[in-house]
Amino acid sequence: MNEERLERQLAFIMEIDRLKSVLRQTLTDGGRRQENTAEHSWHVATMAVLLAEHAEVPVDAGRVIRMLLVHDIVEVDAGDTFCYDAAANLDKAAREQAAAERLFGLLPPEQGCELRELWEEFEAYRTPDARFANALDRLQAMMLNYHAQGRPWRQHGITSDRVLARNEPIGLGSARLWEHARKLVDDALANGYLDS
Amino acid sequence: MNEERLERQLAFIMEIDRLKSVLRQTLTDGGRRQENTAEHSWHVATMAVLLAEHAEVPVDAGRVIRMLLVHDIVEVDAGDTFCYDAAANLDKAAREQAAAERLFGLLPPEQGCELRELWEEFEAYRTPDARFANALDRLQAMMLNYHAQGRPWRQHGITSDRVLARNEPIGLGSARLWEHARKLVDDALANGYLDS
Repeated sequence: MNEERLERQLAFIMEIDRLKSVLRQTLTDGGRRQENTAEHSWHVATMAVLLAEHAEVPVDAGRVIRMLLVHDIVEVDAGDTFCYDAAANLDKAAREQAAAERLFGLLPPEQGCELRELWEEFEAYRTPDARFANALDRLQAMMLNYHAQGRPWRQHGITSDRVLARNEPIGLGSARLWEHARKLVDDALANGYLDS
Repeated sequence: MNEERLERQLAFIMEIDRLKSVLRQTLTDGGRRQENTAEHSWHVATMAVLLAEHAEVPVDAGRVIRMLLVHDIVEVDAGDTFCYDAAANLDKAAREQAAAERLFGLLPPEQGCELRELWEEFEAYRTPDARFANALDRLQAMMLNYHAQGRPWRQHGITSDRVLARNEPIGLGSARLWEHARKLVDDALANGYLDS
């Protein structure tokens, strides 16, 4: 076994420790603090363990789980881009491509390629696995926002039509979960967590 | 599709959000704060994506990843037990069994059983998958402690012989990774991160 290979893998593992310091707009700990991207990634990967049966078409749950573990690793360099921030989203793709180049480039080449392809598949959401992974990614944020009584939505003046438009792709991954997500929006409106 | 089934799954998913508030003795963010169990679980599951090739005997990487995603879920109720705290470890098993009963009991029964069995397999570390998962769990803590210049070790007066005794089971999962871990201890001693 090549010594350099393990060294590269371990260097990557320490580098991605920094994902624990990237903050998202969603709240956790009963709404007391912002969620970070590492714990978010654990949460959505665990959702894939539990919810794969609800995918619109059969998915490879193992691949979906791996995809979700790595789907936000580029944020180590590129940071989290709030999905409703139009300006920040303009250069998001370029920032994330540069990050992917550097970060996955730390790994042994064939392993770096494999992870990068998984991330690119997630981003393109064309395959059933990627569509389902994206559905879980969006649903998780909606659930946390709902359970924080809609604070992140209200704080940024996000109305229900924008939440519905942003999250409609959930339906491509799972009609069943999209139905649940729409019910969350109805309940959020009824409870005053979200403005219409 | 049974409505109650999805409701139970989603209730479990919100319940385990609390794992993000369970603090470990390891440090992250350049040593600035304690790591929480959710982000730790993401880190070790991602290690399994990368390091499965180093397992002592071939493992089912997909099972190892799932095992690591759920291996600490009982801490939602039972809290994190510092591995060098002998008193707290006396009733750890009883506290964790009660937690498993309640938490996995939130899920649809067959899914709850499946996750509980995976957790029990991890705890027993008799199978190759469980031994490898345990090796990653221990190695990750060692790596973070090393990168925090040994602060958690020194703070609790943990000497190198105790670190070696605690982590020796890494070798059951991967002789290769245990060799690396022993080198970390040597380097920690040489750098004054750890007392002999």
